[in-house]
Amino acid sequence: MAKKEVAAGIDIGGTNTVFGLVDREGNILGEDRIKTTHYDEIEVFVAALYEKIQVTLQKLGNGADLIGYGIGTPMGNINKGTIEYAAGLPWKGIVPLAEIFHRHTDLPVVVTNDANAAAVGEMVYGGAKGMKNFVVITLGTGLGSGFVIDGKLVYGHDGFAGEIGHTAIRPGPSNRDCGCGRKGCLETYVSATGLKRSLLKIMADSNEPSELRKFSFDELDAEIIHDAAKRGDYLAKRAFKHTGQMLGFKLADVVAHTNPEAIFLFGGLALAKDLIFEPAKEYMEENLLSIYKGKVKLLPSELSTHNAAVLGASSLIWTNNKS
Amino acid sequence: MAKKEVAAGIDIGGTNTVFGLVDREGNILGEDRIKTTHYDEIEVFVAALYEKIQVTLQKLGNGADLIGYGIGTPMGNINKGTIEYAAGLPWKGIVPLAEIFHRHTDLPVVVTNDANAAAVGEMVYGGAKGMKNFVVITLGTGLGSGFVIDGKLVYGHDGFAGEIGHTAIRPGPSNRDCGCGRKGCLETYVSATGLKRSLLKIMADSNEPSELRKFSFDELDAEIIHDAAKRGDYLAKRAFKHTGQMLGFKLADVVAHTNPEAIFLFGGLALAKDLIFEPAKEYMEENLLSIYKGKVKLLPSELSTHNAAVLGASSLIWTNNKS
Repeated sequence: MAKKEVAAGIDIGGTNTVFGLVDREGNILGEDRIKTTHYDEIEVFVAALYEKIQVTLQKLGNGADLIGYGIGTPMGNINKGTIEYAAGLPWKGIVPLAEIFHRHTDLPVVVTNDANAAAVGEMVYGGAKGMKNFVVITLGTGLGSGFVIDGKLVYGHDGFAGEIGHTAIRPGPSNRDCGCGRKGCLETYVSATGLKRSLLKIMADSNEPSELRKFSFDELDAEIIHDAAKRGDYLAKRAFKHTGQMLGFKLADVVAHTNPEAIFLFGGLALAKDLIFEPAKEYMEENLLSIYKGKVKLLPSELSTHNAAVLGASSLIWTNNKS
Repeated sequence: MAKKEVAAGIDIGGTNTVFGLVDREGNILGEDRIKTTHYDEIEVFVAALYEKIQVTLQKLGNGADLIGYGIGTPMGNINKGTIEYAAGLPWKGIVPLAEIFHRHTDLPVVVTNDANAAAVGEMVYGGAKGMKNFVVITLGTGLGSGFVIDGKLVYGHDGFAGEIGHTAIRPGPSNRDCGCGRKGCLETYVSATGLKRSLLKIMADSNEPSELRKFSFDELDAEIIHDAAKRGDYLAKRAFKHTGQMLGFKLADVVAHTNPEAIFLFGGLALAKDLIFEPAKEYMEENLLSIYKGKVKLLPSELSTHNAAVLGASSLIWTNNKS
């Protein structure tokens, strides 16, 4: 019997590092996790992770043939196989992750950021199958993005291309503080946190009643606002509309830069469906140059939210030979 | 004796259509032009242009071997070989330029917009030799741009990628009218016309004396303002500074999108050197996310302004097999 090829997809997060062994069709044949926060030293982290992957692989029996390790991580640099200055992880400065992995294995190791991994995942397993030019935007606590041009992920000269979350949508000193130390970045408007910030400003200006007035800033999250909007809460709907408009405005820029066939939205906010898609689509079209109008599809990701990070990371192995 | 290969580089402009026969090193061995405005019918225009190119080729004698036609034109679509809705040309709607050319020749015909042609020209003959990821911005009456990623020009799904001139730098209804029908596009700030518009606003707000106060809007051009700035005119210098700042602000976005090794500025405004490069560089760096800071070169084009359009158009043949 021919062995079945599997790729390891690893998603390094601030709290947990989750991995799966994934076949070419996107089936996760085995999975497990380790606690990122338990490992102050990257060498020990990699050794523990590598060991746990081997154990999971052995459980699959003799039929599985591991062909490489795809890793999605905050601030992953695909050109160098490094993690660079990731604020939310235990390891500081520039971490040579692929190099450390290669002390354990000769198989390909591909490191990139979460959003790039999601973009490749969409191409290999999701709605972008067969597409050559598209963009994936991940909407979580922050905003990530990955560009595929001519069938290939765009890395850029230093490995950090496709980072629209930190382009300024509203420049100026009186603007919203961004976690990156600057002001007015797209992420401060279009993300779960951005939605919450917009809600507070709308609430401050309005006298409309709202069930959300009883929540503190700390208590609020995208799900609470989404639920209120579904029940018809006016301020919640306004906050979604504003978020979608800001996104749509920026998407017009994205289209002018790369003229994609489609833009996929992934993550918590994208689950709010029309609440976010309708204003985003409307503002994107309104701000497009005529040659682009009506041509670019704005679509929900077809990767399940639950497994996307692992699938995306594993997909790097099916499309890429960098190590 | 082996024949010398030459590519025809054709630059279609609103008034004249200029062409040259160019060798692999960028030497223009023969050149001529026809008047664009004389030809209401595209078929007649192409026939006349084709004929004139053959005559120029024959003058080179038996030693020259023509290998293809590269064409730079407003609204050129490289995917389809068409000109689409070019406001400044005599032919309306969608013009199947490559198809009409192919009635005369079986050689490759590549059509793209002027700025994309300039980008390829920079890669083949200019300062981007050996670079894989860079951006060229052409600053003339308007603003054009072309992106090269991974050694290839970015076309996008519909052939119109890399168009930053019509992304909004300052959205909103009270903003500057753009020729494209929208408001606040980058081109309304960063172009010869944008410089003039900024000068007028600065002049209106200021009581500083200026030699430029005696010129009408119609009389003013980038050269007059540049000359005044070189003589130390305060308002002229301010207008350049503002133009450079707006450019630099947008370049930070460009870097976040494509993470290039270098950005080249080409055309009239770029000749103003430090007057435009200094504020552009300063504002770009100030608005960059830290991972990009200090890494992206901002450089003047190394193509001569005089021949660049023809060189750029011809270079399409040396790098591209689309037809």
